[in-house]
Amino acid sequence: MQISHIEHVGIAVTSLEEAIPFYENLLGFKCFAIEEVEDQHVKTAFFQVGQTKIELLEATSPESAIAKFIEKNGGRGGIQHIAFAVEDGVANALAEVQEKGGRVVDKEPRRGAEGLNIAFLHPKTTCGALVELCENPNK
Amino acid sequence: MQISHIEHVGIAVTSLEEAIPFYENLLGFKCFAIEEVEDQHVKTAFFQVGQTKIELLEATSPESAIAKFIEKNGGRGGIQHIAFAVEDGVANALAEVQEKGGRVVDKEPRRGAEGLNIAFLHPKTTCGALVELCENPNK
Repeated sequence: MQISHIEHVGIAVTSLEEAIPFYENLLGFKCFAIEEVEDQHVKTAFFQVGQTKIELLEATSPESAIAKFIEKNGGRGGIQHIAFAVEDGVANALAEVQEKGGRVVDKEPRRGAEGLNIAFLHPKTTCGALVELCENPNK
Repeated sequence: MQISHIEHVGIAVTSLEEAIPFYENLLGFKCFAIEEVEDQHVKTAFFQVGQTKIELLEATSPESAIAKFIEKNGGRGGIQHIAFAVEDGVANALAEVQEKGGRVVDKEPRRGAEGLNIAFLHPKTTCGALVELCENPNK
C-alpha cells in the first residue's frame, strides 16, 4: 500500500452552521464546498489546510454514523476519522490489509464525498481510531 | 493567525507496542521517534505522512489526559486532537482567539513533544474537537 498524505480529517459537529464560523473566523480557513452525502446521512463542509482537508460532518438522520458518534461522545462533536490517500488503489489496499490479517468495514471501495473511492478499516485493527482509505478515481 | 498546515494528528492508544505494528506493517509508515513527555504523562511515537505527523499517545499515568480520553471512550483508543502549525506565533494566535471571544485551555504557550511551543483551545470554542496550535521555536 502506497500512502502519499492525509487526504482529510473528518470532524463530527452537531451543527455546521455553528462550527463553520470557528474554522473561518478564528482559524482563518475558507469553506470551499458544502455537500450532502445522502447514503451516509451527512452534510459535509470542506476546508483546505496545506495538503489536507478538514471535513466537517453533520448528521442528517439518527441512523448516521455521525449521529451515533456524537451520542456516544456525550452529545458533543469530536474528531471522528482520519483518511489516507492511497496511490495504488483502495481495492488493492483492502486486499493487502486482509491478507495481513487485518479487518475492514468495507470489503469493496464505495463512493464518498467529493467523488472519491473510499473504504473504512475496522477499529479493532486500527487500535481504536477510525481509519479511511481513499483515492481520486479521476487521477 | 497564519496556519500553514496540519502539524500532526494525535491518536490515543492503549499500548504503543500494539499500535505501532498497525501503522508500520499495514499502512507502511516508519516510526521515526519515541519520546516520553513527563509533564503530560504520555509516551509518544511519531510517523511522517506527507506534510503531517501521526502522533500516537500512550498514557503513563491515570492523571494523563490520554488516560481520561480512553476511559470516556469505553476503554478504546481514538483520535484525540488535531494540531495546526501557526506561522506567526502561538502567543499571537492565543491573543487573537481570546480577542474574538474564543476560549483557550492554555493562556500561554508551553513546551510539547519534539520541542514545539504548543497551546490547546477550549473544546467549547472548537465545537467539540480538541485543537492544538503549535510552532517550532527553532524556525
